[in-house]
This record gives sequence, structure tokens and C-alpha cells, in this order.
Amino acid sequence: MVKRILDAAGAGPGDAVEVKGEGWVHKGVVMPHHSFSGNDVLTLKLPNGYNVGIEAGNIKQLTLIAKGESTSRMTRPLSSQESKPTVAFLGTGGTIASYVDYRTGAVHPAVTIEEVVFSVPELLDLCNVRGKAVFSMYSENMLSEHWSKIAEEAAKELNEGAHAVVVPHGTDTLHYTAAALSFMLKNLTGPVIVVGSQRSSDRPSSDAAMNLLCTAKLAEANLGEVVVVMHGNTSDDYCSIHRGTKVRKMHSSRRDAFRSINQIPLGKVSTKDGAELSPIAKPRARGTVSVDSKWDDNVSLVQFHLGLKPETLQGVVDKSNGLVVAGTGLGHVASNLIPVLKRAVDASKPVVVTTQCLSGRVGLTVYDTGRDMIEAGVIPGEDMLPEVALVKLMWVLGHTRDMKEVSRLMRTNVAGEINPAISLQEYESE
Amino acid sequence: MVKRILDAAGAGPGDAVEVKGEGWVHKGVVMPHHSFSGNDVLTLKLPNGYNVGIEAGNIKQLTLIAKGESTSRMTRPLSSQESKPTVAFLGTGGTIASYVDYRTGAVHPAVTIEEVVFSVPELLDLCNVRGKAVFSMYSENMLSEHWSKIAEEAAKELNEGAHAVVVPHGTDTLHYTAAALSFMLKNLTGPVIVVGSQRSSDRPSSDAAMNLLCTAKLAEANLGEVVVVMHGNTSDDYCSIHRGTKVRKMHSSRRDAFRSINQIPLGKVSTKDGAELSPIAKPRARGTVSVDSKWDDNVSLVQFHLGLKPETLQGVVDKSNGLVVAGTGLGHVASNLIPVLKRAVDASKPVVVTTQCLSGRVGLTVYDTGRDMIEAGVIPGEDMLPEVALVKLMWVLGHTRDMKEVSRLMRTNVAGEINPAISLQEYESE
Repeated sequence: MVKRILDAAGAGPGDAVEVKGEGWVHKGVVMPHHSFSGNDVLTLKLPNGYNVGIEAGNIKQLTLIAKGESTSRMTRPLSSQESKPTVAFLGTGGTIASYVDYRTGAVHPAVTIEEVVFSVPELLDLCNVRGKAVFSMYSENMLSEHWSKIAEEAAKELNEGAHAVVVPHGTDTLHYTAAALSFMLKNLTGPVIVVGSQRSSDRPSSDAAMNLLCTAKLAEANLGEVVVVMHGNTSDDYCSIHRGTKVRKMHSSRRDAFRSINQIPLGKVSTKDGAELSPIAKPRARGTVSVDSKWDDNVSLVQFHLGLKPETLQGVVDKSNGLVVAGTGLGHVASNLIPVLKRAVDASKPVVVTTQCLSGRVGLTVYDTGRDMIEAGVIPGEDMLPEVALVKLMWVLGHTRDMKEVSRLMRTNVAGEINPAISLQEYESE
Repeated sequence: MVKRILDAAGAGPGDAVEVKGEGWVHKGVVMPHHSFSGNDVLTLKLPNGYNVGIEAGNIKQLTLIAKGESTSRMTRPLSSQESKPTVAFLGTGGTIASYVDYRTGAVHPAVTIEEVVFSVPELLDLCNVRGKAVFSMYSENMLSEHWSKIAEEAAKELNEGAHAVVVPHGTDTLHYTAAALSFMLKNLTGPVIVVGSQRSSDRPSSDAAMNLLCTAKLAEANLGEVVVVMHGNTSDDYCSIHRGTKVRKMHSSRRDAFRSINQIPLGKVSTKDGAELSPIAKPRARGTVSVDSKWDDNVSLVQFHLGLKPETLQGVVDKSNGLVVAGTGLGHVASNLIPVLKRAVDASKPVVVTTQCLSGRVGLTVYDTGRDMIEAGVIPGEDMLPEVALVKLMWVLGHTRDMKEVSRLMRTNVAGEINPAISLQEYESE
């Protein structure tokens, strides 16, 4: 039906049109038909950059304003211009690559990387685009095999000359992937940028376009880390650049949901001003990017809570090769759980302790409880986020089961996940 | 040995003394001997208000400067002066009532309420003090029986004329107790203020004194809610007043670790300016305070994480009467876990879904995953914190096992734990 309306007006993708309905009118550019948007929906790019989806049944009149010069932009080949950085987009699914099915209201992931890029054609002004959809899935279903696949593709792209790799990703577990890539990718010759959007590109307040454009802008920077780029505040001013091992989704719906924890952001980036990096951001390495992707998926994360029974915790331990505990405060659990942790350690199942406060550092030498836990053989997770400690323990156990070596690696900074303990003086002045 | 040194100088508690050691000198007021401070430690209150502990062996010389006028203050009876509010202190243990044992470095809880009050004698300038130590324990070991005991004592004190009840508490699970009291205590005729300290009163940066003094100041206010009062920022400017069901410990060590989540604080309070309350703070009720303290302790809180296996989750479900899940983003779990949740619901074990983002609201109608979870029968936890949903489910299951009634109660605001869903417009403007 949309096609018929467009054909009748002599309009097609890339053309500027005026669309009238009952009490409303929209002017914009017709977007390419999307496999998931449904046959009866017209997607229009408005002058403010937002996309709007209009049900065919609601269209009273559609008039061609101008055959679009933008047609050429949208359909031009994704080939190389030397003045621009080359960015490899590795699609994985998620809201950033999603379209609302207007019939059911459901959000579906985009399948091809072209669908992602065509949803924000301005990307082509900033960079040469290449890449592919590595897979397309809801991020809550990912596992280490998916992380490895992304890492391998990212290394390949960088080693084949890409200036940056951008990984559009579902936001739910975006920080898991960022941490996993941080541990796997060695000698990064360019940034690997994990990006998502909290609101799909069909919604007026979508953050998809700005977030993607900011990643393209960051491709120019001298950055050799895995980072997360997402809205830095509730306006459309800039995106924050978060270190891949120090970031977490801290709000279910806000566009600035991602926050650096125990770490100031590595910088900010906007299409207007480009990227501004902190001195702690790692510059590009020279040489070849390599991937170290050995994993043990059988690790559990348990958030201690009042009422958690020893037999429940024991049940989790029995089914796992290792355990990350998110304790209260400085990393505590109830006294009756400490024997369970000791038995785990005695059975060569490492137990890493983090804090469910999220911010701050564990400190297991301050109170009796902590000292008893140390006595039981737990590994202090320093200032690592629980999820990052989980990903790291999965990665470490993929390499060694030697308890001493596991403990050493877990307490050694590998990819920016552990900051040095601050001095008492700094701590007091907090 | 300390006693001998004091006796030799003719000095005792309340007297101003000068103490010299190797390369240092302290002037201050001798504090009463504390049962946990050890026989060989002298505790001195310095002019800046901080306490310092000095090992007897390090004292070279102790000179009496003045017989203390403050003696009378510290030893005066805790009796009533009509011009001041009467505050009942219900000690439960924790850092706020702790003293460092200088021999071992360990932190021990104070046992009597006098020990708490005498550590901050200025309290007696602000209020008439009464109360008792209900118990003394590390807060990570508490359960509903402890919450009920506190609630019963709090109700009794208010019904016997106290203007406010202050509950000094360990910070690790302070927010659990605040939530539990919020659900149990009905018709509050005055504030029930849960307070802790992040650093014990022996340390220069202790927040114990200021936090306690702020609770005494808040006793004057027209407030009929359970609240948490803790440092509002990293300075000693003011304390924030947090609603008991909307607060969480968000840093392992900072003094301003407690933050209101999904709720602006109810106000702030300082000894200088008194209390400033927001219009949403509930005023004192008239009549009699009552307690509704039926609990089911057998509820589990599971934070979903990538790699969580269905059989592990099933093991937790098997051992619980109900489950709170902290899902990713809008409340999601991996697809392979949804059948486990469905079996739990089918076995009349309610499953409440919250978000591990902590901030924001669950939204299970946006994506397929959420809709599948709704289909499985989970209860959306709205904007409740995971720990608050846990405490509430324990409380609700203490009253009914009827699945429909559980669902209704969990989705009904009982004590400020659920805010109305904001409109799409408010949401977009976030």
C-alpha cells in the first residue's frame, strides 16, 4: 500500500515529500523500505534528523516536493574516500539496529549492516563504511562464543586497514561485551567502539543516530582501547567515551544510562567538536592486533542478599567452575555463608569478591567478616564491577585452573579493570 | 595502664589534658573508658570534635590542664527537658556504634546505647535521650526477626511519647532494614530514622557524630516516615533524608554512599539549619503506631547474568517460596531461563522482576523477551529496587500465598516503594 501511494506520487526512497493526514502534516525524505518495518508503513526522515513511521492507512495525501539529491547519497557505494577514516561496522543486533513493527508494536533487530547505516545516512559524510552483520540477536542471550566472534572480526578489520571498528549492540549486556573484548583484544591499532541506543530510530527521541555519528567521529582519534560510546547527558550535546571495563548500564530507559564506575570517562565526542580524550586514554598501538579468546562459560555471579541460604549458595557452587560474589559494602556476606565459600575454594573453585554498591573498592581487612572471608580463601576483586569480574573470571578460567595463578591474574590489571588502590590520604579526602 | 597514667596526673573522664609522645602532642578531653577500646588505650576528644585513640605504651607524659566542666555534661542523667524533643535510640550495632581495638585493628560493635551516645555527647544538647541496644550485630547477618524486633521497639517508643526513633545501624544492609520498617510500621506519629556511619568514630574522617546529630535535629520535624539519614555529600555540610524504600548503599567507602534511587531525597538536615523537607514527605500521623510484622524469610534474589544456566536458576527456585529477579535493562533474562520462571509461577512461587540497572523502571512490553516473561506469569516490579522488592515479597508472602493477591500487593504502592509510571511525554523529555 505504501508502495502504491509512493508510485502514484512518482516518489521513491530519497525523495522529499509532503505527507498529510487527519490534522497533521510531515515533510521529509522517504527512507528505503525496511524488511521489518512492514508493508504498510512509510518511514520518513524529518529535517531534524529523526525518523517517523507513518501507517499507510493514516495517509490522506502524499505530494512529491523534489526528486531527492539525497538519493545519490543513500545509494552511493560504500567505497573508500582517502580523506575520510574507514570504519568497519560489525552488527550484532539490538535497539540501535531495530525497527518497530507497527502492526504488532514489537521491536525487531535489523539484519544487514546496510540497514543500520541507511538508517543514518549522514554516517557516509563522516567515514567510509564497511562491515557486516556478525549476527543479530537480543544481547541478553549472548555468550562467550559471540564475544569471540566479534573480537575475531574486529581484529581482522583493523588488521586489514580499518581506522576503527564500531560494534552496534543491544544495550542490556553491552558492557559485558565491552569488557570481554577488552580482555581478548591485544595491541589495538585503533578503537573498538561498542555502541547502542536506548530508543529505536523510529522514535522521536531516538539516540541511535547521534550515538552512531559520534562513533564515526571518534574513528579519527588516536585511541587504542575498547570503549563504549553513548549519550553523555539527557540532551543531544555529546557522547561520553567509557573504558570498556569500567562502564555499566545504570538506568533502564534514559539515553545517558551508561556510566563510568570507579573511573572518570575517557573523554567525550560530538559531531560538532570531535573527540576530546583524557590523557589516560591509551593511544593506538603499532603492528598487528591479536585475539586471545579462551573462555570458560561456567562461572556464576551471585549477589549476596539477606536471607540467602547456605544450601542455595551451595547449589550454585556445585554447578559452577568459579564464583563471583557481589557482597554488601566492602564485600561482605552473612557469616553462615563463609563455610560454603571455603568449601568452594577447597574444591579448586575460585571465589572472587566484589561489591554490590558497584562504586568503590572491596576491603576485606576492615571487619571480622571480611577477614574471615580472606581466611576462607576468597580473592578480593579490588574495584572491579561484578559483571566485569565475572567476564574476567570466565576468561581467566579459560586459560588456567591453577588456583594461585587464577588469584594472581584476577588481582592483576589486564585491561584497565583494576585501578591502583588509592592512598589513605586520598581516601579520607573523598 | 591508662588508668594508672590518669590517676597519676589526677585526671579522669571529662578532664582536659595534654598528652605527649615521641614527636607529637595532643590536647583534648578524656573520654569515658569503653569496654571495647581495651585497657591500654586512652581515648581523647580533640578540640575539632574528633576522637583519637592513644596506646598507653606510646604516652611519654600526661598533664592535667583543667578539671573538666564537660564532666557534668557527659555524666548528667539522660532525663527529660521539656524544651527539647525526646529521641529514643535503638542500637543495633554497626560502625556507628563501633570502636577500633587498637591491639588488633579490628572494629567491634558497641553494646550499650550509652556507649553510642557518650561517643557524641553533643547529642544531649539537642534532645532528651532514651533508648536501648536492641541487639548488637553486623548488619550482614540480619533477618526479618531482627527487623520485627526493631519495629516493635520503635512503635513502643513512639507510643510512649518519643518524638522520634533513631536506629543506629550497620551500613551494609541499612537499606534493607529501612525498607522492612517502612512496610511494617503503620500510622507513624514521628520519624523512624535509620542512621549509620561509614567510618568509625575513632577515625579523623568519621561521619558518626554528624550523622547522629542530624538525626536529633530531624526529631523536631513534622515527619511521619521511615527515613535514612546519612552524609549528603563528601563535606560535612548536611545529611540527606532518604525515603526508607527508595535508598541504596551505592559506594563501599564514601560517607555519602547512600543515594535515593528513582526518587529525589525527602530533604536535607544539618545541625546549623535544621531540617528542610520536600512537600512529598509524609507528616506525622495522629493516634497509635502499629506494627505488621509477618514475614516469610524464604525468598531469593537472583541477579541475571550472561552464562546463568537454567539448572542453576532452577536450583534456587527449588529452595525458595518466591523469587525476585534483577534482570538486565527493562528487566530481561536470557530466553532459556524463561521456562524456569514459568515453572516457578506454575508451582505458585511468585516471580517479581526488577532491573539490575537499579535506576529506572522495568518495562516488559517493549521487547519480545519481556512479553515472553509476562506470558510466563512474572510480576513487573515497576520502579522498585531489587532489595526493596525482596523485602516486600518476604513481607507479602508472610501475609498471603494466593498468587493473585501477591501480584496485586506487589504492584500496589504500600510505603512509597512504587512511584506512578510517568507519562510518555515526561519519559521522552528525560
